[in-house]
Amino acid sequence: MGRIVASYDVETPVGLERAAQVIAGEQSSGTFLKLPGETDLLRERSGARVERIVEKGRSPTPSLPCRISADIYERGEIVLSWPIENIGPSLPNLLATVAGNLFELAEISALRLTDIQLPEAFADTYPGPAYGPGGTLQLAGVNDRPMIGTIIKPSVGLSPDDTAALVDQLIEGGIDFIKDDELQANGPHCPFEERVREVMRVINRHAERTGRKVMYAFNITGELDEMRRNADLVESAGGTCVMVSLFSLGLAGLSAIRSHVRLPLHCHRNGWGIYSRSPDIGINFPVWQKLWRLAGADHLHVNGLSNKFTETDETVVQSARSLGQPISATHGYQAMPVFSSGQTAVQMAPSLAAIGHTDFIYCAGGGIMGHPGGVAGGVASLRQAAEAAASGIPADEYALDHKELAEALSHFRAPDEPQGKR
Amino acid sequence: MGRIVASYDVETPVGLERAAQVIAGEQSSGTFLKLPGETDLLRERSGARVERIVEKGRSPTPSLPCRISADIYERGEIVLSWPIENIGPSLPNLLATVAGNLFELAEISALRLTDIQLPEAFADTYPGPAYGPGGTLQLAGVNDRPMIGTIIKPSVGLSPDDTAALVDQLIEGGIDFIKDDELQANGPHCPFEERVREVMRVINRHAERTGRKVMYAFNITGELDEMRRNADLVESAGGTCVMVSLFSLGLAGLSAIRSHVRLPLHCHRNGWGIYSRSPDIGINFPVWQKLWRLAGADHLHVNGLSNKFTETDETVVQSARSLGQPISATHGYQAMPVFSSGQTAVQMAPSLAAIGHTDFIYCAGGGIMGHPGGVAGGVASLRQAAEAAASGIPADEYALDHKELAEALSHFRAPDEPQGKR
Repeated sequence: MGRIVASYDVETPVGLERAAQVIAGEQSSGTFLKLPGETDLLRERSGARVERIVEKGRSPTPSLPCRISADIYERGEIVLSWPIENIGPSLPNLLATVAGNLFELAEISALRLTDIQLPEAFADTYPGPAYGPGGTLQLAGVNDRPMIGTIIKPSVGLSPDDTAALVDQLIEGGIDFIKDDELQANGPHCPFEERVREVMRVINRHAERTGRKVMYAFNITGELDEMRRNADLVESAGGTCVMVSLFSLGLAGLSAIRSHVRLPLHCHRNGWGIYSRSPDIGINFPVWQKLWRLAGADHLHVNGLSNKFTETDETVVQSARSLGQPISATHGYQAMPVFSSGQTAVQMAPSLAAIGHTDFIYCAGGGIMGHPGGVAGGVASLRQAAEAAASGIPADEYALDHKELAEALSHFRAPDEPQGKR
Repeated sequence: MGRIVASYDVETPVGLERAAQVIAGEQSSGTFLKLPGETDLLRERSGARVERIVEKGRSPTPSLPCRISADIYERGEIVLSWPIENIGPSLPNLLATVAGNLFELAEISALRLTDIQLPEAFADTYPGPAYGPGGTLQLAGVNDRPMIGTIIKPSVGLSPDDTAALVDQLIEGGIDFIKDDELQANGPHCPFEERVREVMRVINRHAERTGRKVMYAFNITGELDEMRRNADLVESAGGTCVMVSLFSLGLAGLSAIRSHVRLPLHCHRNGWGIYSRSPDIGINFPVWQKLWRLAGADHLHVNGLSNKFTETDETVVQSARSLGQPISATHGYQAMPVFSSGQTAVQMAPSLAAIGHTDFIYCAGGGIMGHPGGVAGGVASLRQAAEAAASGIPADEYALDHKELAEALSHFRAPDEPQGKR
């Protein structure tokens, strides 16, 4: 059946060897006393195993508050494994095993879950994305280039009519993809049902004219029955995408939605900073993205290059690339990266170069709405930037005879300042 | 309709005033450009408001990596508020609003969500715990004293027969409450259905004899359909409690289970260290417990005094007490604190004194199994400790004519070492 393998970056007051043993014990058959029931046979069958320990550094102080103190805190990588028989191929229980109580242990002064390898049984059990990049592009009628997307702004406060009017402008401008902000839910100023009706009226009208239906990710985040009902509503109005906030749903909630909804799931990772911001506690994206893809995420947010947040370009690129790697030996389950956060035409070429293909969604808010030529100019500048990048032509060269791109480069590329800053 | 109020501990390179404005903007109607649609009326109606700023300190270095650098990083409390109309009384969307993208902002170098106040509409909308302390004690036939509980150990690896045999011993010893470890799921060595059947056969047999049914929290954590099915199975076998891992279910998953299950929900917060361990990133228990209680948590883990983890006694006591405070002006929704982690008879009196009442579950693993008198001795020692504490008699005095308590105090109270250490 195989073993679950998890890698951690750990710092410890008790030595890496001991820390690894404590975590392995705490997260499987051990406890703080030798118990009559913990036979050698049981430990052999169900115990977690320490697979590897690599020391990487030492420091005289702990990175996080720690009940146990020491003169030296060792830091390094530890790799543990568990027999899948302990839990079966169950994502909710996997989380409790590899990312449960261990973060609270007194034997660690820093701990990040950095990677995970799963037996084939997980991909055999879970459905993965229903659409992924291929199905999404087909549904949106986009070929051989990134999908140009945007987020409705202001994030909250617009009425359904206001929203539909903005959607109309965006489609006129040539947009491929539009999403609700994750703050836009189902409040009295912009009720979900009315928003879907008004927005889809505009989208369907344009689709009849152009033969291509712009994809709108309606934020269905809510209680489960409500999400099912609202996804059905989107589908019956002719919509082609719904959005969920991953940490509000949990893995069990995401699976439940995947099993009901027949549209691509646009997955927003708001709250991500809690897992990513500290070098000393949390869970890396390579872990989360595997769990989310198994459960059915079609689109996953990865920030963007030179974003308005604190994430580095290095991890943004790693995250975006990781979504294209097959999830297991026999299942692809690729998800579509969504670049977002302070994006403009400026970061298009570097994004495409970093990821090496065009199967991604490129979301710009201010990069479209703030373009000197307005919404139409903003969208045109992004399409031109994508065309140039996909053809291997430098943006500045392509801008010579593409006015909107030229305007974007000059407007958004501030000298001596990272691009896309707030 | 009222406003949602959230308090944060924040550190920032841009000054507290500016940081508060940025968070308020990012989490409501603002964006990094002034947009045509963001009218004064819209901002007035939907914008988040800065309610209070209290500077508490300054340092020359950032606590967490931060894209923006400065000479001085201010630290303090900021309090923001949002009109409930932005999202309606929806817990999953509340999370995205008060604990979403803000943790990633370049304008903060540390951020913890410390408290939250919700309009009455949340408690009017959500059902709260079905049982809480009162319903749980009644179901378990326990009066005027803490419920003595334990966790099946080894955590994983026992067969259903082994588990049932241990349960038999524990009931003979006088236990009130038993729970699966959160690592015990539905694997092939201990399938859920067989475990329920074997364990409930023992529990029901004793209940027929004594008239009192020991409460067993079966860990149903899994996919939603599976959880519903397994909860039904527990109920139909005469079981009186099910357990879930909160972070695996998410708020939407917890609500969905609450609406189906007719038994107390024993809620395990494994993964808690990710939110609590760093002073610089995360969400405090006073926030999470409100969300979980609204969604329906009957029992909530709070660690224990002198636990084997790193949490301080101060926050353990705060957590335990917070569960007894009414959730709103017109709804109680109290949940039952579960003391657990390295607990023995030694910490019983201080726990009772700290919380001020006896409506809690006191779970000891090694404190029962590792007692010199075995399981029966362990359970007896805890009941004696509880009797003494409830009567205001010092444990050492009560131990003079209570052998098992005397044994526990001498065995578990190691000199010069925190109690209950691994």
